[in-house]
Amino acid sequence: MPSFSKLIRFLSKDGRIYYGDAILPEGVTDLAQTKQARVVTGSIFGQHTVTNEIADVRTLLSPLAPEDVRTVRCLGLNYVLHAKESGMALPKYPVLFYKPSTSLSGPTDPIPVPAPIQDDAGLDYECELVAVIGRKGVNIAEEDALSYVMGYSVGNDVSHRDWQLKKGGGQWSLGKGFDGWAPWGPGIVSSSLIKDPQTLQISTRLNGKTVQDSNTSDMIFNVKQAISFLSKGVTLLPGDVIFTGTPSGVGMGRTPNLWLQDGDVVEVELEGVGVCTNKVEFDSKSKL
Amino acid sequence: MPSFSKLIRFLSKDGRIYYGDAILPEGVTDLAQTKQARVVTGSIFGQHTVTNEIADVRTLLSPLAPEDVRTVRCLGLNYVLHAKESGMALPKYPVLFYKPSTSLSGPTDPIPVPAPIQDDAGLDYECELVAVIGRKGVNIAEEDALSYVMGYSVGNDVSHRDWQLKKGGGQWSLGKGFDGWAPWGPGIVSSSLIKDPQTLQISTRLNGKTVQDSNTSDMIFNVKQAISFLSKGVTLLPGDVIFTGTPSGVGMGRTPNLWLQDGDVVEVELEGVGVCTNKVEFDSKSKL
Repeated sequence: MPSFSKLIRFLSKDGRIYYGDAILPEGVTDLAQTKQARVVTGSIFGQHTVTNEIADVRTLLSPLAPEDVRTVRCLGLNYVLHAKESGMALPKYPVLFYKPSTSLSGPTDPIPVPAPIQDDAGLDYECELVAVIGRKGVNIAEEDALSYVMGYSVGNDVSHRDWQLKKGGGQWSLGKGFDGWAPWGPGIVSSSLIKDPQTLQISTRLNGKTVQDSNTSDMIFNVKQAISFLSKGVTLLPGDVIFTGTPSGVGMGRTPNLWLQDGDVVEVELEGVGVCTNKVEFDSKSKL
Repeated sequence: MPSFSKLIRFLSKDGRIYYGDAILPEGVTDLAQTKQARVVTGSIFGQHTVTNEIADVRTLLSPLAPEDVRTVRCLGLNYVLHAKESGMALPKYPVLFYKPSTSLSGPTDPIPVPAPIQDDAGLDYECELVAVIGRKGVNIAEEDALSYVMGYSVGNDVSHRDWQLKKGGGQWSLGKGFDGWAPWGPGIVSSSLIKDPQTLQISTRLNGKTVQDSNTSDMIFNVKQAISFLSKGVTLLPGDVIFTGTPSGVGMGRTPNLWLQDGDVVEVELEGVGVCTNKVEFDSKSKL
């Protein structure tokens, strides 16, 4: 398991991209505030070293390099009040869907909205605790499950409700899988620092106003239950990323609905990890 | 684009694993019959060489190495008669779901059924044409779409209807994503040899008896339409694999239902590619 405590990936002022172990001032926990990091060399899921070389952070990037990501799993309807606001029954088993790894992006990247769907109402935010699998496992027992987690992050499971719920034939992946629709970060806090992932405040701010404000204690299936369930007959691999569902307060659950607009700034925050801030950008290049 | 014509991946008699360009006797098109191949060196999606070194095939493997696979996309309800037998409306847009890359397995591998679901009726077969993306693209026009395909293969989108349609909260991925539930092969036939993927016979045999027998001309969304649609706002990458849906004849569509049992042998076949043969094995190791 990793030797770093607060993993970031960043473009440095020297123009190069590094993994690093964040250096934060005493009392600061938001990894988005990182100005410097100890450079990590080697394979992030294999042999690696936290060196004494200190690099300056210019821009924080998606916490895992594309080549280090395997499967992105997401849970739906995993907070009681969110299932209710969605008008759906509480699930008996965890509800699983996937995003392609190309949907992952960094903690300050824009959220590009393709031209063909800009005119359809329904663009929504979802703050989520993200668990990163650090070692291979299958049929994992609940009591062992957290030992498979390298660390935790926060992400935004950006969703277009019209395409998620209607135009996708009832399958959610289409309306959630566009490029950059899973921004996450600002980094990954080691599970050695977050012993209990079920006690963390999680929230979303839209243009500065709080729209989701909850705690991971409200999950229906907690992280260890989810990992155990997802691993039944399914091998989880280092670099698998699990979005664990969103609490209540999404735009779909409001009257009237609150849909994201071009230029909106969305911040998702997880206690002990930090803030991931992304601006909605209607993308003029993506034609039908 | 690739220089090989019939890509296989195999364990050789020398105990090593190779990519190879299959050598078949005149008149034989089933890649499963391959006894020898010219070894391919280098990166299969980058610089590679079809060498003059000939290796003996011991066992055909999943046509792409795990590290060469990116995202596995699947289409649902993409043949008219299959949508009808499923009791579902014809989709207006392609219906997308995903499998994890760990579900891919080779053309003679067993299909392991985890213990927790062995007692639930509903294990089913689905023969499908598989398209492999060979180069990166986004917002691909229909008329250009086939130029992004490295080649074609055949696969079995193994599905457990109870977990796909009910226990997964309506999301299909859970009941289709177990380890080894996407056997495919026997190899990948270059798109330079299959100019038109919409004229191919596709079929399934269960213990030797034909249970699906159709033609890719019956697809609702053909391969180029599907690729163009899937690429809207979504970057497709070399190593992305697309299962393009199954024709009618699945066990769910029969009266009475025809569910796979322990020991059943399923063969899926695509004209010009060959036969992928897999035995259902109830796995005693996977406990709840």
